[in-house]
Amino acid sequence: MIVEILCIGNELLLGITLNTNSHWLCSQVTNVGGGVVRRVTVVRDEISEISSAIRESLARNPDILITTGGLGATYDDMTFEGMAIALGKKVVLDSRAVKMLKKSYSMRKLHYELTKSRLKMATIPEGFTPIQNPIGSAPAIMKQAGITLIFCLPGVPSEMKTIFEEHILPPIMKGVGKFAAEEINYNVRGISEAMIAPALIEIIKSHPKNTIYLKTHPRGYYRKKTPQIRIQMISRGDDKKEVKKRLAKMAKVIENEIVKLNGTIC
Amino acid sequence: MIVEILCIGNELLLGITLNTNSHWLCSQVTNVGGGVVRRVTVVRDEISEISSAIRESLARNPDILITTGGLGATYDDMTFEGMAIALGKKVVLDSRAVKMLKKSYSMRKLHYELTKSRLKMATIPEGFTPIQNPIGSAPAIMKQAGITLIFCLPGVPSEMKTIFEEHILPPIMKGVGKFAAEEINYNVRGISEAMIAPALIEIIKSHPKNTIYLKTHPRGYYRKKTPQIRIQMISRGDDKKEVKKRLAKMAKVIENEIVKLNGTIC
Repeated sequence: MIVEILCIGNELLLGITLNTNSHWLCSQVTNVGGGVVRRVTVVRDEISEISSAIRESLARNPDILITTGGLGATYDDMTFEGMAIALGKKVVLDSRAVKMLKKSYSMRKLHYELTKSRLKMATIPEGFTPIQNPIGSAPAIMKQAGITLIFCLPGVPSEMKTIFEEHILPPIMKGVGKFAAEEINYNVRGISEAMIAPALIEIIKSHPKNTIYLKTHPRGYYRKKTPQIRIQMISRGDDKKEVKKRLAKMAKVIENEIVKLNGTIC
Repeated sequence: MIVEILCIGNELLLGITLNTNSHWLCSQVTNVGGGVVRRVTVVRDEISEISSAIRESLARNPDILITTGGLGATYDDMTFEGMAIALGKKVVLDSRAVKMLKKSYSMRKLHYELTKSRLKMATIPEGFTPIQNPIGSAPAIMKQAGITLIFCLPGVPSEMKTIFEEHILPPIMKGVGKFAAEEINYNVRGISEAMIAPALIEIIKSHPKNTIYLKTHPRGYYRKKTPQIRIQMISRGDDKKEVKKRLAKMAKVIENEIVKLNGTIC
């Protein structure tokens, strides 16, 4: 289950807003859903940038493309227009989306007129299905386009998260099927990444692809001289028992290697 | 001065590591250097992914392309190979980079042998210039390729930041020339994004392109009913006095609009 994420918003590229949305989505897809995020792209609030990035992503044939941001009422919210251009469609005022917008307002007892700016949020690319925003106003949208299931989510984290959990996580989990993952981390002192690198290569080689994830993370130097690293071991697969067994075996091999290299697990 | 950023690392797409590197780089390029980050891309530790993303970025002709991550000694550090493939070059053991590596170790009084894993960090794409890593081990690299100045920086934040400040910020600032930016933010209660959207469009239209940045950020609801937003106003330009004057004028227009819409600045 290959997922791509496209984040839209000047504030992300101006260094104003830290992109916690993509981080949260990546951890959800990976750890909860068992899918793989292949790429995250961040573009500005410009129609040509948005539509190019969407077209490029669709050309790579992900199972799911998730966009975040740019669904609001203001002039710089351009995701729907960018999506329409990418797919060679028009944007049209969608009566279902208008109904959702009205529901959003009435749920919060807001007596808003449906001005031109507000109706912009219900003006979606042809052929897309609107999704009720359970917290804010702007509806999300979705569409199966070829092999790719496309979702456009709001950029406000609470709205984005709720819609993701209700509408996107289930198809990811269904697509991945039974899935288990287990993880062990060792904090090690006295061994650098380079010292343990040859052993890691051997371990990787001895496992079938995608069954393990093994990585070292540098953690600076103890007393400015003794290297410290974190060794991260993940085992994945369909069978929980098998996954656990594989991880335990790998951890044992790593432990032996640490002893051999005169390192200590902290 | 158009900048693109390419972040390389599975940990970013697994949702393990929050991508603070790209956030920091975006704020430096924008606020300190006066440049524009057009796109951030995040890819996995896979040679084909890295080389495609580099090729795609170079085809968009940015003035500067900065990559982060993947310069270390382990099997999954593939940035140099990916870069070489993208440019149709080979990787070669670079004697200058070996010297830098030795210097890195001796500076920290580390008596390391130059094993195959360690020499990998000095095996760089042909035609690139290595840059001494003043904190860690792996040298960075740089090269002018057509219109684009390419930099590959380490993923460890402290190393990445130091090399950026010493080697990349100066050419960005030189390219941008004299540059000033001023910002005002209003926290407003009682006005939604949609309510003020038409006024913003008018203000944007009345200014030359790239001289102002004007955006609303939703900030939820006060007592579940009263909308709250932040209005962000930035003025930019060559002349500091002119920039300040433009910002003050724009703030006045916004203030009048807020009064007209029965909102209050908090």
